[in-house]
Amino acid sequence: MNTPAPEQQFQVRDPHYVQRIRASFAQQNAMTTIGAQLMEVTPGRVVIEMDWNPQLTQQLGYMHGGMIGVPLDSACGYCAMTLTPADTDMLTIEYKVNFLSPAVGERLRFTGLVLKAGRTITITESCAYVLENDQEKLVAKMVSTLITIPKRSS
Amino acid sequence: MNTPAPEQQFQVRDPHYVQRIRASFAQQNAMTTIGAQLMEVTPGRVVIEMDWNPQLTQQLGYMHGGMIGVPLDSACGYCAMTLTPADTDMLTIEYKVNFLSPAVGERLRFTGLVLKAGRTITITESCAYVLENDQEKLVAKMVSTLITIPKRSS
Amino acid sequence: MNTPAPEQQFQVRDPHYVQRIRASFAQQNAMTTIGAQLMEVTPGRVVIEMDWNPQLTQQLGYMHGGMIGVPLDSACGYCAMTLTPADTDMLTIEYKVNFLSPAVGERLRFTGLVLKAGRTITITESCAYVLENDQEKLVAKMVSTLITIPKRSS
Amino acid sequence: MNTPAPEQQFQVRDPHYVQRIRASFAQQNAMTTIGAQLMEVTPGRVVIEMDWNPQLTQQLGYMHGGMIGVPLDSACGYCAMTLTPADTDMLTIEYKVNFLSPAVGERLRFTGLVLKAGRTITITESCAYVLENDQEKLVAKMVSTLITIPKRSS
Repeated sequence: MNTPAPEQQFQVRDPHYVQRIRASFAQQNAMTTIGAQLMEVTPGRVVIEMDWNPQLTQQLGYMHGGMIGVPLDSACGYCAMTLTPADTDMLTIEYKVNFLSPAVGERLRFTGLVLKAGRTITITESCAYVLENDQEKLVAKMVSTLITIPKRSS
Repeated sequence: MNTPAPEQQFQVRDPHYVQRIRASFAQQNAMTTIGAQLMEVTPGRVVIEMDWNPQLTQQLGYMHGGMIGVPLDSACGYCAMTLTPADTDMLTIEYKVNFLSPAVGERLRFTGLVLKAGRTITITESCAYVLENDQEKLVAKMVSTLITIPKRSS
Repeated sequence: MNTPAPEQQFQVRDPHYVQRIRASFAQQNAMTTIGAQLMEVTPGRVVIEMDWNPQLTQQLGYMHGGMIGVPLDSACGYCAMTLTPADTDMLTIEYKVNFLSPAVGERLRFTGLVLKAGRTITITESCAYVLENDQEKLVAKMVSTLITIPKRSS
Repeated sequence: MNTPAPEQQFQVRDPHYVQRIRASFAQQNAMTTIGAQLMEVTPGRVVIEMDWNPQLTQQLGYMHGGMIGVPLDSACGYCAMTLTPADTDMLTIEYKVNFLSPAVGERLRFTGLVLKAGRTITITESCAYVLENDQEKLVAKMVSTLITIPKRSS
C-alpha cells in the first residue's frame, strides 16, 4: 500500500549503505525492546517486521497506537538513510500517523518508502500491516519529515 | 507550554473518572514497558512522568522519536477520557508529533490537554518535557484526534 | 503517486454518487475562486485540475502552501463522498500536507484516494502534481480524516 | 489559545523585521485574494485578520477547510520570519490542521506563534478564531514546520 515510486529517482551516495543502516538499527535499543527486525534494505525502501508483543498493548489489548509509531518512525528514518552520504546521520523532525484499524495479530510488517530525498530534508512514508494468512492488512500509515545532519565524531 | 484552556468548557460526565482512568492506565502494558506513571488526573488534563529509560533510545543515544510518541499518545487519550461517560472507551484516530529538541535527561514529563471535547470526536494536544534542575524544557508536541466508542462488554 | 488500493474494498452505497458529488462541488465557492474543476469521479477516487492562477501565490511567486491545501482538501473530501450514503454529508476533521517541491507551472492536478472508508470515519490521501510536458511532478501530499454526518435538511 | 511562550527565547536578528515582513505579506497575492490583513507583528508572533468572505466557502456554507489553512499557513510563516536574518526567506515544509468547529462568522482572527526557532528549522503553531461579540472562538489549530533559505537575488 506504499506509493510506488520511480526507482530512478533514488540515487545511492554511499555504496556501503546497507551495512551502515544495519549497524545503526542494531544501536537502536528501542528496536530491541519491541522485538523488531530489519528485514530488507534497498534504495529508498526498508522493511521491518516483528512478532506480536504483548508488552506493547493499550487497555483494550490492541497494540498501543504510540508503539505502532515506533517501528513506523524507524522505517521512515532508515529508508531515508539509504540515500544519504556515509558521513551523515538523520533526525526525525515530525511525523503523523493515521490509524485505519486496531492492530492485533501474530506478526506485523512495516514498510518505509522515500517520497522525496533532498540534501537537507527528506520526506518519507511508512505503512503498518498485520500479517494474516500471508495477506497484509493495512492498519496504520505514517508520513514523516527527516533532516540530514553531520555524523557525530565518536 | 500547553495551551491554557478555559476550565468551564470541561464538563465531567462520570464522577468516577479518576478511578476509571487509573484502572485503564494500569491495563496499558505499554506504559509498564516504558516505565511511565500517571501523576495527575484533572478535568481535561493529565500528567504522565517517567525516568530516563536506556531501553528506549535510537542510534545516537537520544530517546527514540517513536518512543516519545508513546506517553504523548497516552496523555492525549487519558485527558480526553476525563470528559467521557463511564460506559465508553477511546481510540486514537491520528496523531502528529513535532520534535523541537533531542530528548535526553534524567526524567521526562508529558502533559495532555483537551482542546475540544465532542460527543464523538475529541481533539487534544500533549507536550513532552525534559526535566532539568526543576525546569521544564519542551522537546516535542503532539496534536491528536480521538474517537469515543461504546465500552466492550468483558 | 497515490497508493494503489484494491478496488474491491470500495463499496458504493449511493448509485447517484457522481451526480451528488458534482452538485456539491459546484456549491463550493472556494473551488470557483481558485478555478478548480472536477475532472474524474470513480469509486474511492477523484481528480481535480486547475490552471495556474497568479492570484494564489506567496511572496516568491510559487503557489501559496495554504492554497495548495484547498484542492487537496476537496480531493480528500470528494473521494470519501463517493462511498457514503445519499443522505449524508462530510466534514474534514484534520489534514496534514507535506511539501516536496515548490509548485509553479501551467497546470496542476490533484488526485484523491480513500485509504479506509468507515461508517463514521474515513481516511484519505491526496496528491498535488504540476503537469509538465504530459508528465506529473509530485509537489505535495495530504493525508486527511473526515467524518460522515447526516445531511442538513434545506 | 496559543501556547504562551517565554519571550526571552525570541531573539530578533533583523532590526527591520516588521518592515521586511509587511513587504513580504504585501507580495502574497493569496492574502489579497482572501482579503486578509496583517494586524500585529511582534517577536515570534503575528496576528492576521479578515472579514467573512463568501467566496471561500464549501458546500454547507462554512469556510472551506483548505481556505482556513491559507491564513493559518501565512501566520506560521510570518511569525517564524520575525526571528530570521534579513537575507533569508522561508518555505513551509509541512503543516497539519485540526478543525474544532465549523467556521462561520463576521470576522476571523489568525494568530501565529513560534514554538522553536532553529538556524535551519522553525516550528510554529497558529490558531483560527471566529470573532463573536468581542469573544474569540477557537475553530482550528495548525502546527507547522518551516525551513529558512537564502534570499533569492532579484
